[in-house]
Amino acid sequence: MNEAALKLIARHGYEAVSMRQLAAEIGLQQAALYRYIPSKQDMLFALLHEHMVALLASCQEQVEASPPRRLYSFINHHVRFHLARRDATHVSNMELRSLDADKRVVILDLRTRYEEKLRAILRDGVSSGAFDLGGLDGEVELTARAIIQMLTGVVVWFRETDRLPVEAVSRIYSNMALRIVGAKTAIREETACIATA
Amino acid sequence: MNEAALKLIARHGYEAVSMRQLAAEIGLQQAALYRYIPSKQDMLFALLHEHMVALLASCQEQVEASPPRRLYSFINHHVRFHLARRDATHVSNMELRSLDADKRVVILDLRTRYEEKLRAILRDGVSSGAFDLGGLDGEVELTARAIIQMLTGVVVWFRETDRLPVEAVSRIYSNMALRIVGAKTAIREETACIATA
Repeated sequence: MNEAALKLIARHGYEAVSMRQLAAEIGLQQAALYRYIPSKQDMLFALLHEHMVALLASCQEQVEASPPRRLYSFINHHVRFHLARRDATHVSNMELRSLDADKRVVILDLRTRYEEKLRAILRDGVSSGAFDLGGLDGEVELTARAIIQMLTGVVVWFRETDRLPVEAVSRIYSNMALRIVGAKTAIREETACIATA
Repeated sequence: MNEAALKLIARHGYEAVSMRQLAAEIGLQQAALYRYIPSKQDMLFALLHEHMVALLASCQEQVEASPPRRLYSFINHHVRFHLARRDATHVSNMELRSLDADKRVVILDLRTRYEEKLRAILRDGVSSGAFDLGGLDGEVELTARAIIQMLTGVVVWFRETDRLPVEAVSRIYSNMALRIVGAKTAIREETACIATA
């Protein structure tokens, strides 16, 4: 049901899609759909909420690993998770503004919790000396934002090819993130901890 | 006239805004507006086109400078240009999909021309040895995309403060870009060549 709704909203935009179209796409009578989802707003909220909850749940924190490896795993998981959920990612990026303020706050709170995982990795890397933010140690938040933003475009342009499979792209972006934070060395091999992506 | 239209579309989204609202915001009768702009599509195209043409025109190529300095200037200009035009930037990012295919192609072509300026700087840096893409010398396009994408979020979250004025943010992002491409040194001072931003 979610996939059908996401596909429709990703293609036409939330404002342009009606509950009637959503019901038809899902294969339900409109009245039956309303029994599950009271309104189009509830539908959008459910889609965005599920996306963020899944992202948080699948992002494993490896507190025992070194900050560079944790950063590598975080980015690797982020890229793979979103590439596996293109429609949900697109709708989350484009339609957050269409959500009523009270619901938007809930999604933004989940996003903040997710970004906090990245900020914690950056802080640990700075304090252990593994990362060198180039005099910007106070700018962990800004750096975290830049890294997440850098990844956002991948879902838009990426098309898997032999030359550039998902694994290569996630590795390339992980190493770009390591460069941004001034990590001493790139990590080239695959990590085993991203199987949930 | 453009500012009023951009403000309205940035706030409510293109689909939700009517020509009647646009006319009212601009301070014209609807019939008078139609004399200037035949349709809402033409309005959106004019707004996105003007934005891209201004971006290209104001982006000075300093072919005589070193690749690191050219990259620094490019990013610096990019950040300042877009922060000075928040509504136009937001509309360009969010509403490109609302543009009819034939018009969208024109805007995408301008975007490609703009990105090509960045790619040229990266290629020159790689071939002169000033940049080290960490074994990704074939991935100039991917790196350019990651850099531009990294900048896109700035307009969303940035609010000027004493601690973080526009100059500081554009400098921070310019140096993050230099790190991504493996430039040997950060550039800390201001350049004089961004006065058109």
